[in-house]
Amino acid sequence: MVFTNPPVILASYSVVGPKEGQGPLGKTFSKVWKDQLNGAKSWEVAESNMLQEAMQGSIDQAGIAKDQIDYMLAGDLLNQIISSSFAARKIALPFIGLYGACSTMALGLALGSMLIDGGFARNVLVGASSHHDTAERQFRAPTEQGTQRPMSAQWTVTGAGSVLLGRRGEGPRISSATIGRVIDYAEKDVNNMGSAMAPAVADTILNHFHDLQRKATDYDLIASGDLGAVGLALATEVLKQSGIDMGTAFTDCGVMVFDPSQDVHSGASGCGCSAVVFAGNVMRRIKVGELKRVMLVGSGALHSPTSSLQGESIPGIGHAVVIDA
Amino acid sequence: MVFTNPPVILASYSVVGPKEGQGPLGKTFSKVWKDQLNGAKSWEVAESNMLQEAMQGSIDQAGIAKDQIDYMLAGDLLNQIISSSFAARKIALPFIGLYGACSTMALGLALGSMLIDGGFARNVLVGASSHHDTAERQFRAPTEQGTQRPMSAQWTVTGAGSVLLGRRGEGPRISSATIGRVIDYAEKDVNNMGSAMAPAVADTILNHFHDLQRKATDYDLIASGDLGAVGLALATEVLKQSGIDMGTAFTDCGVMVFDPSQDVHSGASGCGCSAVVFAGNVMRRIKVGELKRVMLVGSGALHSPTSSLQGESIPGIGHAVVIDA
Repeated sequence: MVFTNPPVILASYSVVGPKEGQGPLGKTFSKVWKDQLNGAKSWEVAESNMLQEAMQGSIDQAGIAKDQIDYMLAGDLLNQIISSSFAARKIALPFIGLYGACSTMALGLALGSMLIDGGFARNVLVGASSHHDTAERQFRAPTEQGTQRPMSAQWTVTGAGSVLLGRRGEGPRISSATIGRVIDYAEKDVNNMGSAMAPAVADTILNHFHDLQRKATDYDLIASGDLGAVGLALATEVLKQSGIDMGTAFTDCGVMVFDPSQDVHSGASGCGCSAVVFAGNVMRRIKVGELKRVMLVGSGALHSPTSSLQGESIPGIGHAVVIDA
Repeated sequence: MVFTNPPVILASYSVVGPKEGQGPLGKTFSKVWKDQLNGAKSWEVAESNMLQEAMQGSIDQAGIAKDQIDYMLAGDLLNQIISSSFAARKIALPFIGLYGACSTMALGLALGSMLIDGGFARNVLVGASSHHDTAERQFRAPTEQGTQRPMSAQWTVTGAGSVLLGRRGEGPRISSATIGRVIDYAEKDVNNMGSAMAPAVADTILNHFHDLQRKATDYDLIASGDLGAVGLALATEVLKQSGIDMGTAFTDCGVMVFDPSQDVHSGASGCGCSAVVFAGNVMRRIKVGELKRVMLVGSGALHSPTSSLQGESIPGIGHAVVIDA
């Protein structure tokens, strides 16, 4: 969809954990926590607090009264998206809960843009979060166990990002969006989610290019979020075989967050990954004029531990939003 | 929000389990399964199949080609909403995953209406599901354990409902919607979710009446979904204390599904509950002219077993949609 009155990004805010703060993008985040809890009694409470801090950060940055914001759209990886629901309890705005796994930020930006362009909202607050320790014990193994991770595995980002969209004002604009279909190429390895999601990302990019009659060189940056190094290479190859040369503009939020020396194997992941990279690094580069047109392709692995234990493969999805400076 | 071009309900379809089929609404459902699995190897696969069957049922009933449907909106109670994601893998439409616990059907109808009225879609497929046995073992205790349930507990419906919304055509129309805020009155008893959700339902009804300058007698039916008997009495009392007389039109989908002789205590619950009551019973009564204006107030308890084990209370939410015959 192409927006008639493209919504404006009025503010963005990102909060991350210490490991993310030590990475190559460390200085681009709004706030870096000193530890994984920041005074909370559990990692789950910490994640919800982090999301609330990121949401409030965008409200404060934009200087908009809360009663001028019509909806809050958010999601996360935790069962029953408790990070978002508990943050929404404190933010107290009409709340639309989303589940798109790591694609949530892009899904929220797309839906939020539709609500504004459709005339249903003046301003919409969008956010997503993940936390390494909550995700690790929910999706994989008890953190105390210290299970060895294969080289195709990704490291869940401890981070929360938010964006405040508005009908009016100054700033970059969300000009178009492509909502993805669920694609499943029968990948069953939960330690190789980049491969599970790569076909869905490729499908969405193909559809987007087809619908808008565009090619990769029309963008200064096309960032998937998050395939990791393994998935990025695979998506590039799948697109190449479909006749699409992604050139040099194609990268992945999961590849950007950590330095290889930080021992994260295939890269970063989690709803918070593309959320903080977009709210931090990408928004800064748009603001200083380095990037004129960006496509964020949020990518989600839509499995659960239960579905994987029952022998199911991992369905993937990709949602794209385009930002014009 | 009030829709300028109210979306039309082109079709609705409901699939339920045997216990629901034996209840007072049994004859209003499109299909009743003979057992809880219907040939699937697990309850989780069965739930996803049931949702897919309900979604396909609406498509077939409307006789609309799938490429005329622009989005599928769905959600369920399972961790990472796998019932919906796996159903979306087979339906293969652009997919927007929602999490609103038992409020999901109303949330999907509200969002789907915005997408159509906003000009972003021609037709939108909305659905939600729950399954007694998948929910029981995920949220409470192993089913084999046969844990005794307190009288305030509700019985999760095995059911999936779907609605196909369109921009054009004949049928009842969704005229307005009110998206709810998260409200938490510190209820911590996971066997009394009706009480946890009642304040949120009351808040949404109050806001809806205020925004549209209406009262209860403007509706032939106001159905919350699903508070159960305990929560319905509480919501009625909360509204009364706020000066709102709900009269005789106010009931609850969770009260309607089972007969007291079916031993479900406070009533029915689950994303599938309001979905099948709306898609079945309510839609039939609208079609035969018994109901001219209906408000469905989907109600969700936004906790998780983890948040409850950590001592958190249960945040509630209510989303309202109004259907005019």
